[in-house]
Amino acid sequence: MTFKEELAKRSEEVQAVVYAYLPAEEGFQKTLLEAMNYSMTAGGKRLRPLLMQETYRLFGGNGKVVEPFMAAIEMIHTHSLVHDDLPAMDNDEYRRGKKTTHVVYGEAMAILAGDGLLNYAYETACRAFALEPGNPHIGEAMTVLTTKTGVYGMLGGQAVDVQSVGGTLSREKLDFIYRLKTSALIECSMMTGAILAGASEEEIRTIGQVASDVGLAFQIQDDILDVTSTSQELGKPTGSDERNHKTTYVTVEGLDKAKADVAAVSERAVCTLARLPQKNEFLKELIGALVTRRN
Amino acid sequence: MTFKEELAKRSEEVQAVVYAYLPAEEGFQKTLLEAMNYSMTAGGKRLRPLLMQETYRLFGGNGKVVEPFMAAIEMIHTHSLVHDDLPAMDNDEYRRGKKTTHVVYGEAMAILAGDGLLNYAYETACRAFALEPGNPHIGEAMTVLTTKTGVYGMLGGQAVDVQSVGGTLSREKLDFIYRLKTSALIECSMMTGAILAGASEEEIRTIGQVASDVGLAFQIQDDILDVTSTSQELGKPTGSDERNHKTTYVTVEGLDKAKADVAAVSERAVCTLARLPQKNEFLKELIGALVTRRN
Repeated sequence: MTFKEELAKRSEEVQAVVYAYLPAEEGFQKTLLEAMNYSMTAGGKRLRPLLMQETYRLFGGNGKVVEPFMAAIEMIHTHSLVHDDLPAMDNDEYRRGKKTTHVVYGEAMAILAGDGLLNYAYETACRAFALEPGNPHIGEAMTVLTTKTGVYGMLGGQAVDVQSVGGTLSREKLDFIYRLKTSALIECSMMTGAILAGASEEEIRTIGQVASDVGLAFQIQDDILDVTSTSQELGKPTGSDERNHKTTYVTVEGLDKAKADVAAVSERAVCTLARLPQKNEFLKELIGALVTRRN
Repeated sequence: MTFKEELAKRSEEVQAVVYAYLPAEEGFQKTLLEAMNYSMTAGGKRLRPLLMQETYRLFGGNGKVVEPFMAAIEMIHTHSLVHDDLPAMDNDEYRRGKKTTHVVYGEAMAILAGDGLLNYAYETACRAFALEPGNPHIGEAMTVLTTKTGVYGMLGGQAVDVQSVGGTLSREKLDFIYRLKTSALIECSMMTGAILAGASEEEIRTIGQVASDVGLAFQIQDDILDVTSTSQELGKPTGSDERNHKTTYVTVEGLDKAKADVAAVSERAVCTLARLPQKNEFLKELIGALVTRRN
């Protein structure tokens, strides 16, 4: 099987896990549940749960305890997209070629759907306690999940990003935003995978470094694609950073250096991964593929 | 010491616990943290953490493991107020006599501050894992905390409430909203207190019934005060339900029956509580006082 075929197969498996944890659309709060599922089923690469699963396997994990966490990380990611798209935030009407949640369900319901997804993520992750009672790693994984999502992780990065629109950014602040807004959830995915598999502290630290570089490379590649890709390839309008006068890695460093840095940072991630005695060839190829992607 | 003095003293202690868990206002994301703390320090009865602490004590709890959960439930409650007040929701400019978060910090930051509070609640609750490693009740308490907050609890009730504004409500739907929007967090407070103290399943079920009645009585009293109180007493405009054409317990049952029902439901809560062999005189008086309150 080629890597591409393998990726398609595993992504489908990951998506099935995520879908299995979506709430049933019933009861008086049916519209809220529909709005949540609308954004969850609107496509996406399922990259975070995929990275979590492969890291879990890298460290010898072979149970079901990782599955509620895989669903949770995708719900957290989707929560951030739903709220990011709101009129008071980025005011985006399309994502992945589909109308955004507030366009379909109205602003109030989109705010609640985003809240609902964030909360349901933790509700879902809590199912792990019943799957493996007494497993001490679950509390540790919950701690990393909440911390990397919150004000010292993704949400903190988003707040600084929102405040920075229209102004110019120092390289220091840009790095801060990238590290929190994008890398934190990638770190979260890989670290919780490692924790749940029972990896050592040293191994968790190493995989955190890998994830940090993967996140940075991923975000720079996003900036590059916003300049070089077509709207059709991306499923959303390109050139939005320029229109919004956003400081990005490309505006600070130029397109050529950005491309060279993506390659270097992703190479560093692969090298750090190779230092571990455990091997997962698919994970290695996945990291390489992320920075040559076209969408 | 009179009950009123005791209440003031214990509320102050509870507030100190909550404040101890607020994030430091520093770093690039300082404004976000300020916005979160602004709403957290804007007053309030701290009823939920107080009920949690007293229920924890009722079942013999005497550790610190309840404290991060006390802070968490107040953050969750405050999160719901910040998002409820948004222009796309209730569009309220004042709460407890102070300007609401979006009026002070703008809409985008208020959305993120609400998200930040919800997430920080769980981040804070996770600190319990480090306080008492291996305590199996913490995972159980986390499960109740997330479930009662989410789409089958508070957030589900809010969604139905938002969709019902301007229309007429069946008594069945009104009960659903009250049970989820208000009672769920009260149940959550008392049940997690009981769980963390190691109460039995039967005891947790009983305290859940008490809490459900306390929540219902609390909400009906809110409806009564909206009609009978002054704006100065309430710290927010009265008569808002009528202006918003909202179906409430008072519009459905009339003021006299609402008053009688508050008394009956709160009496039932006190009786159920009395069935337990454990006694907490302050908790009993607190439940009685909630339905004679003027704000």
